[in-house]
Amino acid sequence: MKKLILSAVVSCSMLCMCAQPNVKLPAPAKKGGKDVVESLWARRSGTEFSSKMLTDQDLSNLLFSAIGINREDGRLTSPTARNMQEIRVFVFTAEGVSEYMNKENSLRPIVKGDYRQLIAAHQDWVKQAPLSLLIVADETKFGSNNERSKTMMALDAGIVCENINLFCAGTGLVTRPRASMDEAGIKSLLGFDDTITLLLNNPIGYPKDSEKK
Amino acid sequence: MKKLILSAVVSCSMLCMCAQPNVKLPAPAKKGGKDVVESLWARRSGTEFSSKMLTDQDLSNLLFSAIGINREDGRLTSPTARNMQEIRVFVFTAEGVSEYMNKENSLRPIVKGDYRQLIAAHQDWVKQAPLSLLIVADETKFGSNNERSKTMMALDAGIVCENINLFCAGTGLVTRPRASMDEAGIKSLLGFDDTITLLLNNPIGYPKDSEKK
Repeated sequence: MKKLILSAVVSCSMLCMCAQPNVKLPAPAKKGGKDVVESLWARRSGTEFSSKMLTDQDLSNLLFSAIGINREDGRLTSPTARNMQEIRVFVFTAEGVSEYMNKENSLRPIVKGDYRQLIAAHQDWVKQAPLSLLIVADETKFGSNNERSKTMMALDAGIVCENINLFCAGTGLVTRPRASMDEAGIKSLLGFDDTITLLLNNPIGYPKDSEKK
Repeated sequence: MKKLILSAVVSCSMLCMCAQPNVKLPAPAKKGGKDVVESLWARRSGTEFSSKMLTDQDLSNLLFSAIGINREDGRLTSPTARNMQEIRVFVFTAEGVSEYMNKENSLRPIVKGDYRQLIAAHQDWVKQAPLSLLIVADETKFGSNNERSKTMMALDAGIVCENINLFCAGTGLVTRPRASMDEAGIKSLLGFDDTITLLLNNPIGYPKDSEKK
């Protein structure tokens, strides 16, 4: 019964959110951060975050780093096998969950509410991050789901994740790539069927006690 | 019989190479290249290379980007699941094949001779690159080989590959990540058993017709 009520609440929230228009992000910056070699030296995983939400500009830059379109032909910052662009990125904040739509550089609201605990699963520190990015592979975009395809999609997800990690390292954000999460809970919340594979997530924030806005 | 002779020749080459000491690389640079956001904008795949071999310094910087040690505690530029550091990187040039030993920042010679065609497989453009990096996962380092482990190792390999891609984008090198290669030929050449999974490769060089040294 509890499950049914939760399901009804979630469905209602989803309907509410679906009615909302996409939220346009500022255009991603063209420059910023340490140089690429310094960024590689600075690359490390961190688990302590300021609770401050990222500015819209920093969020736009971050999402661009993941799967942004960096050329007129529509290709991405992150290469994918045969340019299938099957990796999708979702943003979990205290306000809700949305999907990054790279073609419009916007957020597509999916559900209202704080579901960061689904990303955290058993690791409480994750909930301290003001946002987490969820990286999934979409078989319907990749076009096949045999063993080799699954490997290719995992390779592509790792590629997206490292763009995030290096962007954070280069611009002073804290993150840590993770594979743990409440997969069943996330799939249920976001209405994912078995064509969606949850692969990685990145809790992200400014450094704890930082003065950055 | 031909196979036996080839095998004997290869074994002999390998013995000859094994007798060679590791080749120390210059220390990787601390700075260099475009800033991280510019590097993300510049990230793209290319297939046209100058035939000039990379300088030792550029090679060192490149290999550091892949799996270099960037902290005193021995952690790497590329995060791995539970810090298992199971990804190994091999260098194929016209001269031979060697492995990047990140702890010593050196190359461990394995076999003499030009085996870049094993990386190229059916794509001739690959052989024009003065070197290719081969990215493999080593189960003996990861400690398990179930389905989830295989996914984790692929994620980790993608992460290493994107460090290479972004380093190249930021420093003006040309590369393209690939999953195609002559797997059987490479495994035979390098004596890999089934604990080694070949995942990706990156042909790399200076831009064609570049004036760079």
